[in-house]
Amino acid sequence: MKRILISETKKFTGNEVIIKGWLHRIRSMGKIAFLLVRDRSGIIQCVVDTRDIEIKGLKLESVVEVRGTAIKNESVKDGVEIQVHALNVISPAEDLPIEINKESLELNLDVLLNNRVLSMRNPKINAIFRIQAALAQGFSQYLTQQGFTQIFTPKIVAEGTEGGTNLFTVDYFDKKAYLAQSPQFYKQMMVGAGYERVFETGHVYRAESHDTKRHLNEYVSLDLEMGFIEDEYEIMELETELLRFMITNLTQICRTELELLDAHIPVVPMEIPKLKLTEAIQILKTQYGKNNIDGDLDPEGEALISGYVKEKYNSDFVFLTHYSQSKRPMYTMPAGEYETHSFDLLFRGLEITTGGQRIHQCEKLKSNMLKHGLNPNNFEGYMSVFRHGMPPHGGLAIGLERITAMLLGLENVREASTFPRDRNRLAP
Amino acid sequence: MKRILISETKKFTGNEVIIKGWLHRIRSMGKIAFLLVRDRSGIIQCVVDTRDIEIKGLKLESVVEVRGTAIKNESVKDGVEIQVHALNVISPAEDLPIEINKESLELNLDVLLNNRVLSMRNPKINAIFRIQAALAQGFSQYLTQQGFTQIFTPKIVAEGTEGGTNLFTVDYFDKKAYLAQSPQFYKQMMVGAGYERVFETGHVYRAESHDTKRHLNEYVSLDLEMGFIEDEYEIMELETELLRFMITNLTQICRTELELLDAHIPVVPMEIPKLKLTEAIQILKTQYGKNNIDGDLDPEGEALISGYVKEKYNSDFVFLTHYSQSKRPMYTMPAGEYETHSFDLLFRGLEITTGGQRIHQCEKLKSNMLKHGLNPNNFEGYMSVFRHGMPPHGGLAIGLERITAMLLGLENVREASTFPRDRNRLAP
Repeated sequence: MKRILISETKKFTGNEVIIKGWLHRIRSMGKIAFLLVRDRSGIIQCVVDTRDIEIKGLKLESVVEVRGTAIKNESVKDGVEIQVHALNVISPAEDLPIEINKESLELNLDVLLNNRVLSMRNPKINAIFRIQAALAQGFSQYLTQQGFTQIFTPKIVAEGTEGGTNLFTVDYFDKKAYLAQSPQFYKQMMVGAGYERVFETGHVYRAESHDTKRHLNEYVSLDLEMGFIEDEYEIMELETELLRFMITNLTQICRTELELLDAHIPVVPMEIPKLKLTEAIQILKTQYGKNNIDGDLDPEGEALISGYVKEKYNSDFVFLTHYSQSKRPMYTMPAGEYETHSFDLLFRGLEITTGGQRIHQCEKLKSNMLKHGLNPNNFEGYMSVFRHGMPPHGGLAIGLERITAMLLGLENVREASTFPRDRNRLAP
Repeated sequence: MKRILISETKKFTGNEVIIKGWLHRIRSMGKIAFLLVRDRSGIIQCVVDTRDIEIKGLKLESVVEVRGTAIKNESVKDGVEIQVHALNVISPAEDLPIEINKESLELNLDVLLNNRVLSMRNPKINAIFRIQAALAQGFSQYLTQQGFTQIFTPKIVAEGTEGGTNLFTVDYFDKKAYLAQSPQFYKQMMVGAGYERVFETGHVYRAESHDTKRHLNEYVSLDLEMGFIEDEYEIMELETELLRFMITNLTQICRTELELLDAHIPVVPMEIPKLKLTEAIQILKTQYGKNNIDGDLDPEGEALISGYVKEKYNSDFVFLTHYSQSKRPMYTMPAGEYETHSFDLLFRGLEITTGGQRIHQCEKLKSNMLKHGLNPNNFEGYMSVFRHGMPPHGGLAIGLERITAMLLGLENVREASTFPRDRNRLAP
């Protein structure tokens, strides 16, 4: 007889079944014991007659095989339980360092992450990464439908995209190399290589030494880049449709997980409100008395402006546009003398996307590099693309952990990373 | 009027259209010139009356916008061409360092890679990475259907999976860290975290200093791991189905690309032939007189045994099983005294997969580490999972560049990497 999944048990009511999973809870009532067993599909109650089957010494989280009859019981979840005939420990567990089988784990973040594998067995925490997978899948699926090609570009690079700051160094044989901060140059190059529309789901690395609840030193970036655009508004339009698809897809795939986490699913409006950064700053000054703003919003500013937009337009999202040239990387297309064709997307108070139109003209790029204090000779591999027919183009990147965290109301972006890396954490 | 894709032009026969793309070829015939324009969807002939439209000075690979009438012409590809009304250079090109608009580029590999973006504009080379994207997509799609969860695990790690050899070192703030050689530990941990079935598509890093046509120092690994298996045969069965799906999916998505490359699509047999490694060695000795075999096959041995299987069973694939314990990493499940529950998959003479069952018992793992000369204390984060209920499990990894290369008959695996990294190549 083959193992069935717990979620399939109901179909087998009246029959003998085998399930396998982890021992989630044990409740002993004298002659009868109730064992909750958990597999990837759910949790089921197994009723054991302890006169026939020994349960002494059984430890929580042991991997067990249960053979028994599936019987109807309207008083339990899913209306089915298993009357156990045989119980077999496949893989025993030692005493647990943390209690994981409660509804919600009330652990401090360090304890939770130090015991990452165990804490992920808690259904609520487990659900986070199923939801994350569905978000990533929606990203790929929508873009593939829109004619984008998935690309894989190197993470070991010879030069940084933003001029050498915040780079991790790698000993690459007898040379020094770096970990890519973003696939920016490569996704642009792939647009220019004739694919026109490309996306990449991959890790990026930021050697930022600050340790905040919104930063990771290694994170998953959902990147896209597209050619033959008019301006950055096309990119924002695409992102709006993309987010709508990702969220709809998620609610279809992960209904149970979202309910379990009591997730508040945002509505993506037909048009996400847009504010010029200068307008946003003005609003913060006049309506919130916030004057300490230096060209970009700080976390408090992002939260306030998101609150403003939520109240005024009932949108969880807001595009901030026209960032100043000094605040954007050298490849950003200038707009007029000071501004750029760029944007950020805030979601519930946190920046989850940076995007914009890029410079596609070689001379303009060169002079912009100089303006940013960079030496064009250090970017030869990248520059050469612009000499041989580069279409107007732009793109964006969404931080996968950030969008997951904001969607689920997680306090710290680390909770949305399987095994987060930060200044103090390299393990597990 | 909005740009249409070249592949859509036929639908607009008789109408004015705008296309945008790269100037692929120019043939001037006095008063008339024929321009071939290329976009991501194809190539089209554009007919220019040079008395009205200046084409002097036009350079190949410039990005152009062509406005004109789509007209029927049975003598050209797709039966449609464009009678040009207006031609506009969006982004000019300088003289090209390599000639790319030939049917096949006959460039040496270094020149091709040094001019990677230009060489990828050649339709045959461009097709390689569309095919690669379709393979990666098939991998995700099949596994998602089979209840696998996509995971993202760290590439910056504190310990190697195979004991410290062939690792790239990263300066991680004030510590030393490494680039992950594989997501091995993490995918096992995610099985144990309750996901049971997981996959990851991501980069892996091998600091191997040899420079061969089958090695890359950074490559894309298609990894999967599944719990509650009986033995490694379940993994081989899954891989057989997976490959069948990936290849069928590919032929549906990339028909044009596969035809262009004249790709010989393999049939995945209902059951891929299996040979114990010792049998394979015996065959090589007796039938091919190859005696210089030390526990594993060298490239020549792999090619010979693939030829043998092709001839005897008409299969492009062969599983080699039961590798010896000394040739497999410490986490491999032993089988008897010397062998292991492990396998490789050869495809047309090249190993594209390594897989097997893993040890799930803590004590067994510890003693196997010691047997391999490793100190269990160095693997604490990994080991702790095995103390709290780890199901029997196994998995595999497919090298994305290798399977792409073998499928398309590419000489060197670098041709199947967008921007390959090897001992001597860090750019572009």
